[in-house]
Amino acid sequence: MVGVSTAERAGGAGQRGGGADRTPKQDRSRATRQRLLEAAVACLAEHGWAGSTVAVVAMRAGVSRGAAQHHFPTREDLFTAAVEYVAEERSQALRALFPQGPRGAGADRRAVVAALVDLYTGPLFRAALHLWVAASDEEQLRPRVTELEARVGRETHRIAVELLGADESRPGVRETVQGLLDMARGLGLANLLTDDGQRRERVVAQWAALLEETLA
Amino acid sequence: MVGVSTAERAGGAGQRGGGADRTPKQDRSRATRQRLLEAAVACLAEHGWAGSTVAVVAMRAGVSRGAAQHHFPTREDLFTAAVEYVAEERSQALRALFPQGPRGAGADRRAVVAALVDLYTGPLFRAALHLWVAASDEEQLRPRVTELEARVGRETHRIAVELLGADESRPGVRETVQGLLDMARGLGLANLLTDDGQRRERVVAQWAALLEETLA
Repeated sequence: MVGVSTAERAGGAGQRGGGADRTPKQDRSRATRQRLLEAAVACLAEHGWAGSTVAVVAMRAGVSRGAAQHHFPTREDLFTAAVEYVAEERSQALRALFPQGPRGAGADRRAVVAALVDLYTGPLFRAALHLWVAASDEEQLRPRVTELEARVGRETHRIAVELLGADESRPGVRETVQGLLDMARGLGLANLLTDDGQRRERVVAQWAALLEETLA
Repeated sequence: MVGVSTAERAGGAGQRGGGADRTPKQDRSRATRQRLLEAAVACLAEHGWAGSTVAVVAMRAGVSRGAAQHHFPTREDLFTAAVEYVAEERSQALRALFPQGPRGAGADRRAVVAALVDLYTGPLFRAALHLWVAASDEEQLRPRVTELEARVGRETHRIAVELLGADESRPGVRETVQGLLDMARGLGLANLLTDDGQRRERVVAQWAALLEETLA
């Protein structure tokens, strides 16, 4: 299952196990950790940073406060791990949408652009947005979120280049892909207060066509 | 002075005056209102919604709490008026950058794109972002911010179309301009935690070139 493997990669020394030789206790610990991460993202998306404490998340996950703190000693640990966890889930889901890999194998660019933009319109984007905005005001959170954001951004860029079959050795191609991801982020923001789906679809169609001309 | 005229337009029945026939009392009232609006935006950009109360803003503006509440009975009144006020200031400043008007008169599109993107990277954008994110969680704030955002968005789109000399009767042109503004918003978000200026400049150059091809 995708969830478990990304939960492993998302950190948590001591929770790693080699598949078949995991003990039931390790399995339970891993499942608890994952429940906490998922509850943390849901809380952040729904209530924002101010309303998201470790206690609230533990309650939502059905986990004791002590168990939550065993996995995540601080609130910052919990929320940066949560956004990272879901970002990795989404990256995997995105790759899974185009299992044939780079574009030469047949994925059409408009579908890839639409799938990339979709990454920025769900609960993960809302959660990440709350985290970014909180980090812009809170010195404790800021360096961790900045580092996380840079890492997730690089990974998303790498996947975009691969799925679009973009040749970054050509002048302007790298910036074209970056601008596309900036636009996706802006479309996510436009979707925060109202359902912007219809307008977004037209914008995506138009910019996918421009992108096609540039990358072809 | 630009500030005063936009403060007038930003609302505040009872503060409107016809220029020369304003009384000193009306002038003082208008100046107080403007100080409050500017302090509100600065507070929101620096401390976020949770840290921005009417009392904090009044203190920052050097205005009594009672005077602040006379101008803005609720916190929602103050902050939506503040973001609207500054958005109007920015629209005026943007038009003033290109006094020759539509593009036929000589403004180059890359300069227009760069100026549009600049709208999304300063303290106003940070303040507006805090307001949007707070509105996404707070039912009291949400309808007002949604309405404000729609109005500011339409106005920005209108200015962009005018300054870019874009002919929206041609298929795809409207969506091209919308996508550009979405990208500008995304670039603003990318600038929230780190200074993204160098990367942004390259992205803007590349997408301005793509835009030029599409609109030409």
